[in-house]
Amino acid sequence: MTEFSRRGVIGGSAALAGGLAMLAGQASAQTASEPPTAAQTGAPASAPFPSFRFPLGSITAQKQYPGGWGKEVNAENFPPSESFAGVLMELKPGGLRELHWHANAAEWAYVIDGACRITVIDPGGGSETLDLTAGDVWFFPRGHGHSIEGLGPSGTTFVLVFDNGAFSEFATFSITDWLAHTPVEVLAKNLGVPVSTFAAFPKKEAYISLGAPPGATPWPPAPGSLDTPPLTHGYHLLGQQPRRYPGGTVRLVSQKEFPISASMTGALITLEPGALREMHWHPNADEWQLYLAGTGQMTVFGSAGRASTDRFGKLDVGYVPRGCGHYIENVGDDELQVLLVLNSGTYEEISLTQWLASNPKPLLANNFSVPEATFESIPEGEVFITG
Amino acid sequence: MTEFSRRGVIGGSAALAGGLAMLAGQASAQTASEPPTAAQTGAPASAPFPSFRFPLGSITAQKQYPGGWGKEVNAENFPPSESFAGVLMELKPGGLRELHWHANAAEWAYVIDGACRITVIDPGGGSETLDLTAGDVWFFPRGHGHSIEGLGPSGTTFVLVFDNGAFSEFATFSITDWLAHTPVEVLAKNLGVPVSTFAAFPKKEAYISLGAPPGATPWPPAPGSLDTPPLTHGYHLLGQQPRRYPGGTVRLVSQKEFPISASMTGALITLEPGALREMHWHPNADEWQLYLAGTGQMTVFGSAGRASTDRFGKLDVGYVPRGCGHYIENVGDDELQVLLVLNSGTYEEISLTQWLASNPKPLLANNFSVPEATFESIPEGEVFITG
Amino acid sequence: MTEFSRRGVIGGSAALAGGLAMLAGQASAQTASEPPTAAQTGAPASAPFPSFRFPLGSITAQKQYPGGWGKEVNAENFPPSESFAGVLMELKPGGLRELHWHANAAEWAYVIDGACRITVIDPGGGSETLDLTAGDVWFFPRGHGHSIEGLGPSGTTFVLVFDNGAFSEFATFSITDWLAHTPVEVLAKNLGVPVSTFAAFPKKEAYISLGAPPGATPWPPAPGSLDTPPLTHGYHLLGQQPRRYPGGTVRLVSQKEFPISASMTGALITLEPGALREMHWHPNADEWQLYLAGTGQMTVFGSAGRASTDRFGKLDVGYVPRGCGHYIENVGDDELQVLLVLNSGTYEEISLTQWLASNPKPLLANNFSVPEATFESIPEGEVFITG
Repeated sequence: MTEFSRRGVIGGSAALAGGLAMLAGQASAQTASEPPTAAQTGAPASAPFPSFRFPLGSITAQKQYPGGWGKEVNAENFPPSESFAGVLMELKPGGLRELHWHANAAEWAYVIDGACRITVIDPGGGSETLDLTAGDVWFFPRGHGHSIEGLGPSGTTFVLVFDNGAFSEFATFSITDWLAHTPVEVLAKNLGVPVSTFAAFPKKEAYISLGAPPGATPWPPAPGSLDTPPLTHGYHLLGQQPRRYPGGTVRLVSQKEFPISASMTGALITLEPGALREMHWHPNADEWQLYLAGTGQMTVFGSAGRASTDRFGKLDVGYVPRGCGHYIENVGDDELQVLLVLNSGTYEEISLTQWLASNPKPLLANNFSVPEATFESIPEGEVFITG
Repeated sequence: MTEFSRRGVIGGSAALAGGLAMLAGQASAQTASEPPTAAQTGAPASAPFPSFRFPLGSITAQKQYPGGWGKEVNAENFPPSESFAGVLMELKPGGLRELHWHANAAEWAYVIDGACRITVIDPGGGSETLDLTAGDVWFFPRGHGHSIEGLGPSGTTFVLVFDNGAFSEFATFSITDWLAHTPVEVLAKNLGVPVSTFAAFPKKEAYISLGAPPGATPWPPAPGSLDTPPLTHGYHLLGQQPRRYPGGTVRLVSQKEFPISASMTGALITLEPGALREMHWHPNADEWQLYLAGTGQMTVFGSAGRASTDRFGKLDVGYVPRGCGHYIENVGDDELQVLLVLNSGTYEEISLTQWLASNPKPLLANNFSVPEATFESIPEGEVFITG
Repeated sequence: MTEFSRRGVIGGSAALAGGLAMLAGQASAQTASEPPTAAQTGAPASAPFPSFRFPLGSITAQKQYPGGWGKEVNAENFPPSESFAGVLMELKPGGLRELHWHANAAEWAYVIDGACRITVIDPGGGSETLDLTAGDVWFFPRGHGHSIEGLGPSGTTFVLVFDNGAFSEFATFSITDWLAHTPVEVLAKNLGVPVSTFAAFPKKEAYISLGAPPGATPWPPAPGSLDTPPLTHGYHLLGQQPRRYPGGTVRLVSQKEFPISASMTGALITLEPGALREMHWHPNADEWQLYLAGTGQMTVFGSAGRASTDRFGKLDVGYVPRGCGHYIENVGDDELQVLLVLNSGTYEEISLTQWLASNPKPLLANNFSVPEATFESIPEGEVFITG
């Protein structure tokens, strides 16, 4: 009895059907809102393997304010996400995600829609104020103070990605919370103003405040107080010339292109209908994904007979643990757009086609117990995205 | 009902009183020997936040010998101290904290009183013998063998700081313990001497031995056996010209000033009565504090409405987790002296005044829901220590 | 009552006997197949200390195939081995440990017998095919795809060492397993071949396949597909001129000698009968050992009165946690050969003789409460291996 049939018997007929369907290339057509069943993951009964999909777009925002909202996914509501937390946020014009910092994660972000203004300070005394629009990326190193403000006319939607699955955006260090929990006499002494100054200050965290939409250009920095930081915090990803393949495009932003982004790499890929971002793995990083448009399918292979196949729709989150084999296929009728974030500033991958091409064909024949001729027409180098 | 009043109701009248007292700048006047009550920490009932003070000076020394004593604080008796252990030690003239090494922590030390001789060996074959006096610092990288000996006329008191909260000075690798647990035939073979040589050796760990006080200058190194190490292990911190502010001074010793100190930074700050080391945080390090003189107050802000205020007296230990906002105020009548140690060789901080100065005033007005004029007279740059 | 006698009373007469035997240099003559009893380890009853020996050679191979077998030791069957896993493997001529990669460990290997061919690909697109023989080392960085094939006439035996105690060679990412768990339509699209191509592919992991023994020289790389990697993955350790001491030899391969080996260092030591690799510790690394020939004895000293003495025979594994003092003595009649692997690319050690030589003799006299004359005839520098 083979491993597959034994698994079917142990796991019941549903598992058997799932395993056979996968072998036949007939991954079940789940809708984006249905997580896969255990049978569909292809995992043996003895080694459960989770779904790597989380429907971030369709959950209720955990934080809601007049100035905007935020919804979060991290290891608490999506256990496979051990190394990343993500937040989808919308800010109205004048909506301000207030001055705050994070003690345990860096922040990588991508503007999905509209325009925003960011301010950030670093420990070297440098500060920066930037206006960013759709397709722009920012990076804030761990612990650097920052804010994000929605600009007119329509505010902004963006995604924040943090390199720590235990991180929660909803337990950050906000300036109003800090000041509300410091004796007012200390505040007065620190800022050289009367105690009465703080009477009208918020008594608890503002998180997102709402004021007049700011003007179209950033304010000049405060007079003489701070220097320009050595490395800018913004990068115009959509302005980059993409690498083009027969079936799609890739824009990549690692530390090489964006020097401040020392611990994260991002990529925006597009796939035409039917195109495949080929089978590969990343030796040095976990991968967090946000599907921006279209319908994709991904199988995550986890060794020891474990694999999990899911379908992904708009604003679904995907996750691939470091080293796990995976691909992304456009299984819909429209262009598939996926944002990828990896937790290393250096991009590394090894692809199936490249690996096969680098090995002697007699060795491949031995490995798969098939004739050498089987490998005569496989690609002679990396494919990356099929046509 | 605001967050603050709700907390008061949940936590009872004591919590309410504590919260209001803090808002009014009337932090309760605890004595140095009384840890703060839960009410005084300002933490919401739903998110307990500990005191960050440990009365190291007033506990009984866990190790006592004719040649000296040691008392220790680490994560076991002071749970917030996840990243540091500290030891206060006194050695009489001729009292020797014997040859030993640590497998899981580097050692940063400051001589509080008197004079001592240190010996240290590194894996490159370099060794160093140094006589140090009050105000000197030493640094031993993890695993390097060393000893400390009290010199005349009065011996020495010093503090050891280890970059690991799970570390215990009382489970170190001591040479007498090592030799006592090695077959004597192996010892004889290793050192080329008869087995009888070891008959009079200690049968268990000496820890602190007591011999004749050594002479006033270090012995010369053994003939031709070892080289001078490339980096010295000692630094004369009190000999450094301090940075001066209206209300105090700072002496800082990071890897820049003291190259061997690759994983720790120290600082000695003095504050005049009423002066404030301003509100700030360290993006890259936890902070361990030893209060050397005077009376201080510190609030540690931990996000999500959590804060903890304590008073610190002579030989109290304070702790600030990485990224947590804090300040130190001299609330006594005498100069306040505090020794700070951070677990990074690079010093980084962001201060409240610097952060506010770097942001547009309309943004601050939006953030705090107050008029822009509120921020007209705040400092235009970093304050560091108020006058 | 001294620490030693109290321990004896607490631990019973067996513990007392063990402690006294060790002090007298009469470590019990265990056979290689008997793990030491608690009494023999010298550990106080209050601080149990394990045996650091695992009989890898004598366990049943957990993986057995027509083409070869593998037997594994890691933290699961040998709990002290927190930082290393090891695998002993034999491949027949044409036996192929198939194309695979590891997500959570680098692989350092030593060819014990025979000859093998390795292939490896790196994320930079470089690939290498090498034929290695007894005495050769290879290193595969974490996540790089590779294979190992037995060559004629007699196949090969080798040891794999992984820098993670939680690693299992038997849960690696094998190419047959990956392809069997990917929809065949995706495979067909990825490789540009018909779905029917995969009908004869294995339906589960091959792990070790068996084909025709390959020719005597490696195949040329696939045409134009890949570049030579910047750093070679193989090193001829037995070809190195050893450092010679009166009682033995050492060959060392750190990152300095073998640049790709960034996270591991290996060494091959030989000791003549009666010779001693002297007492020392490694400040920066754990140590994994495979005894290749002869009979050795090692005591591991773990601070706080804890020590553990074992005898080691052919294909026994030894382990020394970072910072623990230890020695290796040849207690048999034949040459002792030991393979050592440390989990740092930089080799660091501090030896007892070097340490004693670097300290003033009056200080040593104070430390051990014996006359200075006791140290008159000890070595004036490092011994490394006694005669």
